[in-house]
Amino acid sequence: MKKTVIQYVLDRLKEEGIADVFGVPGDFAFPINDAVCKDSDLRWIGCCNELNASYAADGYARIKGLAALSTTYGVGELSALCGIAGAYAENVPIFHIVGMPNSKTQQEQRIVHHTLGDGVYDHFVKMAAPAACAHAILTPDNIVSEMERVIHAALAEKRPVYVAIASDHAEAEITIPTDSPVQASLQSDPKQLVQVMAALKEELGNAQSAVVLAGVLLRRLGLVSMVQEWVEAKGIPYATMFMDKTALDESTPGYIGMYDGKIGNTEVRQFVESCDVVLNLGGLWSDLNTGAFTANIQSSRRIDIMQHHVVIGQTAYENIEMADVLDALAEFDIPRVSSSPEPKGLSAPQSSQDTSIGMDYLYSKWESFLHSEDILIAETGTASLGMSTALMPSNSLFLNQSLWASIGWATPAAFGAALASPDRRIILITGEGAHQLTAQEIGQFYRYGLKPVIFCINNQGYLIERLLCKEPELAYNDLADWNYCKLPEALGCKDWFSARVSTNNELDEAMRQAETNGTGAYIEVVTDRNAAPPVAMALHQFITTLYGK
Amino acid sequence: MKKTVIQYVLDRLKEEGIADVFGVPGDFAFPINDAVCKDSDLRWIGCCNELNASYAADGYARIKGLAALSTTYGVGELSALCGIAGAYAENVPIFHIVGMPNSKTQQEQRIVHHTLGDGVYDHFVKMAAPAACAHAILTPDNIVSEMERVIHAALAEKRPVYVAIASDHAEAEITIPTDSPVQASLQSDPKQLVQVMAALKEELGNAQSAVVLAGVLLRRLGLVSMVQEWVEAKGIPYATMFMDKTALDESTPGYIGMYDGKIGNTEVRQFVESCDVVLNLGGLWSDLNTGAFTANIQSSRRIDIMQHHVVIGQTAYENIEMADVLDALAEFDIPRVSSSPEPKGLSAPQSSQDTSIGMDYLYSKWESFLHSEDILIAETGTASLGMSTALMPSNSLFLNQSLWASIGWATPAAFGAALASPDRRIILITGEGAHQLTAQEIGQFYRYGLKPVIFCINNQGYLIERLLCKEPELAYNDLADWNYCKLPEALGCKDWFSARVSTNNELDEAMRQAETNGTGAYIEVVTDRNAAPPVAMALHQFITTLYGK
Repeated sequence: MKKTVIQYVLDRLKEEGIADVFGVPGDFAFPINDAVCKDSDLRWIGCCNELNASYAADGYARIKGLAALSTTYGVGELSALCGIAGAYAENVPIFHIVGMPNSKTQQEQRIVHHTLGDGVYDHFVKMAAPAACAHAILTPDNIVSEMERVIHAALAEKRPVYVAIASDHAEAEITIPTDSPVQASLQSDPKQLVQVMAALKEELGNAQSAVVLAGVLLRRLGLVSMVQEWVEAKGIPYATMFMDKTALDESTPGYIGMYDGKIGNTEVRQFVESCDVVLNLGGLWSDLNTGAFTANIQSSRRIDIMQHHVVIGQTAYENIEMADVLDALAEFDIPRVSSSPEPKGLSAPQSSQDTSIGMDYLYSKWESFLHSEDILIAETGTASLGMSTALMPSNSLFLNQSLWASIGWATPAAFGAALASPDRRIILITGEGAHQLTAQEIGQFYRYGLKPVIFCINNQGYLIERLLCKEPELAYNDLADWNYCKLPEALGCKDWFSARVSTNNELDEAMRQAETNGTGAYIEVVTDRNAAPPVAMALHQFITTLYGK
Repeated sequence: MKKTVIQYVLDRLKEEGIADVFGVPGDFAFPINDAVCKDSDLRWIGCCNELNASYAADGYARIKGLAALSTTYGVGELSALCGIAGAYAENVPIFHIVGMPNSKTQQEQRIVHHTLGDGVYDHFVKMAAPAACAHAILTPDNIVSEMERVIHAALAEKRPVYVAIASDHAEAEITIPTDSPVQASLQSDPKQLVQVMAALKEELGNAQSAVVLAGVLLRRLGLVSMVQEWVEAKGIPYATMFMDKTALDESTPGYIGMYDGKIGNTEVRQFVESCDVVLNLGGLWSDLNTGAFTANIQSSRRIDIMQHHVVIGQTAYENIEMADVLDALAEFDIPRVSSSPEPKGLSAPQSSQDTSIGMDYLYSKWESFLHSEDILIAETGTASLGMSTALMPSNSLFLNQSLWASIGWATPAAFGAALASPDRRIILITGEGAHQLTAQEIGQFYRYGLKPVIFCINNQGYLIERLLCKEPELAYNDLADWNYCKLPEALGCKDWFSARVSTNNELDEAMRQAETNGTGAYIEVVTDRNAAPPVAMALHQFITTLYGK
């Protein structure tokens, strides 16, 4: 059978469940753009710019497990790089396809647009490589094996991969081999696995109490149901760290709350830090997961079961796949504690007077607004910190980007998540400073028939920075003074409900409208310049440990 | 004398004329942000996002000769990378300062936000390096010599440089040496220079006719007045290529028009291609400068006087500085021609009927709208192609980005250019597809008290792509359907004149308002879906040579 190189790529992606391709078109990518649009099983998802497209692909992949992104040479791919690096950091697989100039143009080192003018054509693949777990220049000769290598890397590592194709190569016809290409899958080293399980058995056998920290990696690796059943069957209490919120369901028995060192709930912290064994399933000991490095779990009590390795105390075991360990662990006895903390959400919103909008009221209202199955996208900053202690309803998701923590991620990521799950309600909560980076993507929700509920906090500046810097009133924390509630109209969201609210009653009324209006909704929430939710205020207390001074 | 590392950096930049620092703040860059805001000789120019900030810095540097940009680690610097690469391609010097995590955090390989989670801290400097002519990690130990090295590179090469500073290092105090650091400047190789001048003398002595192609590099290198005087004194006719428009003034004798192979004016092409010697002063033989490689100048007739080398026919002379060659050339006799083409602009706008807006009328109106001293920023696409054949008034500037050609550049670049020249009128002409990438920066004009005139062409899609791709109606050329004329209101431009025009009379009236209103102005110009100016239509004829098929 014959097909073009690009059709081969797209067909393989479809086999992996890809139905949408995000991107911005460009002339060197025309053969890719053409093929996507002409394939009746694929939908082209045009974004306003490539950074936004990469964030949208990220949001989509967090739901669907894989996303595809198409950009053009140089200008397009470099614009997407920050978003791709974020997906790399946070184990989100994105298949990035870049259209390059004609191979003859490259060979002749011609000076064409979208180049540095030096006739050199491998600058950008080199720049992209650190943010990809595999990369390839695809040609008619290598397409079958290289495609298999990179797609396997994306799925095994749960990280972005980068492929580039010259325009003429994309359209070249190849003969597809009748044998399907085979790529060996990652396997645990059997001897190491035996050793690690023996060590685990001993550790757990000696312990009187154990707690699980459930990492978001479980979700990326498709291990959520297995672990959810296991913790419930064994009665093991579990917490999540900031980056991992809703890695497991927060509505089922066993969930005790967020563990985040001294910026998290004290009862949860004391419980976790007092257990004989802390079984960390994929969580990262990063600054924002550990309450600015205030977490205090003795390494002798810590067991880190990571994607490809396990650490028990001071001993590291390499070439061990997380799924294999969790499989074997299901057979083990786990020490049970007699009692563990009850998860505390935010308190119910107090019946309010019609005053300016306080933080307790606002975040409690948002918590109470959430339904089962909702997807909440919380932007880095006070928004995600404030919602991190909300108790999420069953089967709801809390998406944030707290390791890469690139402000602006949330708005396009919400668009991608909405496309990936058209039957679920999408709620975006963003601060206005972060929103300004990528706000134009709002227009895409309407364009693609999606109806999110968007809350934009307007507190006249980068509030999280005001909390973390030395002199909050320096000019760099100020912003252009937008009329946020007018954005949907300007960006073509023709029938949306939009409001600007600055009192509790106005907020209540707008949230009622957003709940019932049947359209997209955009609510600009005006709050006091320095009002921040408790977790953000707590982080402010630990600036010294946060920055390692 | 003692000062902090960052103050040393800023003081050196001020010595080079920097008065503004563009950027987006971030916690690892706080010491940089703090120092900028506390320095009464510097102004912090906050942008909506880092890509926009890099484009704004680019626009500023095109006017002022150097710009400064501050971003934070990872997320910030990578977001700016496309804009920096564009500045590299087009010889625009930007001093890019990145704030890194504390040096102890780096040494201990801690996992903090804005990293890939691997404890590795040199990923991003490596990714940035290909788009910088010099880069350095500045420390208290190396600051004096390294700062000198990179700033000298930026000014000599007219390209971006990259420096990164750990937070604690930025605030460390250093003792400034009493001797000023010395950096050797670039010198031509004296023997080579003698050889090249002899070769030039022979070439010119044998020629009966000569024409100059004036490259924008003349402007970057500060050689405009010298060359302008020289061509006038010697009576040498000169043309510019697309990327080089307004490299020399278009209102003085000698200017013959744009040379752009077969997509440019025929008379100009025939004249240039018939001259015995074509003296190219820094122009690039790129796709869009050569009418999709339809330029036809025999190499034996071509003399390329470039930034650091000269090519005469098939012979290349290295280590030759352009200024030295031009200095020596002033003494030479240059063959004079008896007649050369008169420059043709667009025809005067025909007295119009009140019909939908045609291309001839629109572009002629724009040409007639331009005054002496105006700065026109023309976005890549039909806008810049359409305006490339307009005749620019005296001392006006045409800014475009036609080598890197990253759509979205023009809107923030116009903002940067406006800040750099508050006394000149700034006119931005952009297509709406390109505008969508970076439109949020419009709010900054108002915030900083600037009053541009902005024209946004709304033709329902990426028109230049419709002209260059195989099937114009495929979905990837479509856009979210914005209400462009509402953008200024949404983005906080409180008193601006804004209008949506779709007939000639409406256009006339809106342009009258824009001329007289005394505020910023934003005019959405609705045109036919497929209406394109002649040069863009001509490019469409040469797709095959453009893409090297």
